[in-house]
Amino acid sequence: MPAIECVPNVSEGRRAEVVQALVDAVRAVPEVRLLDSSSDPSHNRSVFTMVGEAASLKAAILSLFETATARIDLRQHSGEHPRLGAVDVVPFIPIADVTMTECVELARATAADVARRFDLPVFLYEEAATTPERRNLEHIRRGEFEGLSAKLARPEWVPDFGPARPHPTAGASVIGARMPLIAYNVNLATDRLEVAKKIAAAVRHSSGGFHFVKAMGVSLEDRGIVQVSMNLTNYEKTPIFRVFEAVKREAERYGVAVLESEIIGLVPAAALLGSAEYYLQIAGFTPQQVLETRLGLDGG
Amino acid sequence: MPAIECVPNVSEGRRAEVVQALVDAVRAVPEVRLLDSSSDPSHNRSVFTMVGEAASLKAAILSLFETATARIDLRQHSGEHPRLGAVDVVPFIPIADVTMTECVELARATAADVARRFDLPVFLYEEAATTPERRNLEHIRRGEFEGLSAKLARPEWVPDFGPARPHPTAGASVIGARMPLIAYNVNLATDRLEVAKKIAAAVRHSSGGFHFVKAMGVSLEDRGIVQVSMNLTNYEKTPIFRVFEAVKREAERYGVAVLESEIIGLVPAAALLGSAEYYLQIAGFTPQQVLETRLGLDGG
Repeated sequence: MPAIECVPNVSEGRRAEVVQALVDAVRAVPEVRLLDSSSDPSHNRSVFTMVGEAASLKAAILSLFETATARIDLRQHSGEHPRLGAVDVVPFIPIADVTMTECVELARATAADVARRFDLPVFLYEEAATTPERRNLEHIRRGEFEGLSAKLARPEWVPDFGPARPHPTAGASVIGARMPLIAYNVNLATDRLEVAKKIAAAVRHSSGGFHFVKAMGVSLEDRGIVQVSMNLTNYEKTPIFRVFEAVKREAERYGVAVLESEIIGLVPAAALLGSAEYYLQIAGFTPQQVLETRLGLDGG
Repeated sequence: MPAIECVPNVSEGRRAEVVQALVDAVRAVPEVRLLDSSSDPSHNRSVFTMVGEAASLKAAILSLFETATARIDLRQHSGEHPRLGAVDVVPFIPIADVTMTECVELARATAADVARRFDLPVFLYEEAATTPERRNLEHIRRGEFEGLSAKLARPEWVPDFGPARPHPTAGASVIGARMPLIAYNVNLATDRLEVAKKIAAAVRHSSGGFHFVKAMGVSLEDRGIVQVSMNLTNYEKTPIFRVFEAVKREAERYGVAVLESEIIGLVPAAALLGSAEYYLQIAGFTPQQVLETRLGLDGG
């Protein structure tokens, strides 16, 4: 059975009744499984994790937009997290028996429907982007809701779908397709923050490290240690084990040991199976050898 | 959804029409998924791998016995593999959302039905065994079909179910419950067979090694290398990574490098996820973090 994950980020993390209405909007499409709902009041933002097939996910996202545009007014919204619209970002993520191309098609079809039905500008991002500059979410979101009117007036920021002016209360949305993102941290047996920062700089893409790694060094003050806090944005091309080994090796340079690593939230099994294959030096392994693959997602 | 694996070994590996009739007998219970059927003519034996819930598996095994007792005559049977009966061995194996205790109960219920319906002696083995001596399959099978009459006459070999005399054509059967077995080999970058044999002796239970490892050293003559060929009979208590590291360390003692390892056939995801956790030093990981667990076997 094909499975696509969708993780919409909505600009409401404080009013519980609105968050509940958003959850109900998704649950109105019973074929979609809502796996997680998490709200951050200081960000004033909620993140919903759901899984389903293409048609049902599109229906659930349209239902979410219906509620969000009715209940959220960006003119009244403040929070620490940058945002462009009521339903700020909608990524579609291939999980099982589905290609990235199919997720890109789903993103475009959903964006077209959203723009038409709500008269709302929509940008396509990451794998669904129509220009290289639009691949990057931060780049699209720069200027935020408050700068949207001026941004949309520039020829290079004509939206992919919908009008070249903001929706008065719901702003604009960014819809796209991407690989699963893994939140992965490595904790170091030291309280020297500069070590974590130097290692983060060594492994992250923006300062010369691995292509699909975002990283920063942070202090875990309650534990008296530091952490290299990372997002792995494509575990197939930049696998976990390679990043872990690089962090460990860089730490040795400073005489620091790795205490442990952590995976935050959900992770595709394939990301960890790849690490088992690597360390155990398993040759010729195929996913069809995993019993659960044969039982679960593979049509049973 | 609970999933139990069942891997009956039947004493027929040459007559294609009989093997097909055995496959059809299992397929007569549509709730059971037959994952694999493999026949070995020199062993004159076939192994069927199926998965399902308790009640359906019991029905499929009874259907298999029905066909096997009708079509197989052990008095006419020869082959390299030791055997006691037409349906020689039937292990039930917990895979997901099911306990070993439930598999033991299923083994006992199936054994009782088989003995009553076919008037056939049945021994319970491994986790389902009623005495410590009967845990071991090789021990129960010693003497084979030809020695069965004399064996059953001895008070210590009264069967767990059924008559204390062999079925005239179908002999006796051994039914039980066990952990998934992983066929795991480590290939060494040498042609020195004695190195593989010494390492096998070091890691296997019977000569002082790990509790749940069976191992032997063999030559892969076409490749000019040797192999430590293993069965891991309980990956929770003797995990793959511990065995791999021990083999690697022993090989170093002889100046030999590990070329690669191999997993033959199916492996539960948990066995490999455990190795990823170990090498990546992941703290506080739970199976609920694996996306596929949330999607597949967990009630979806």
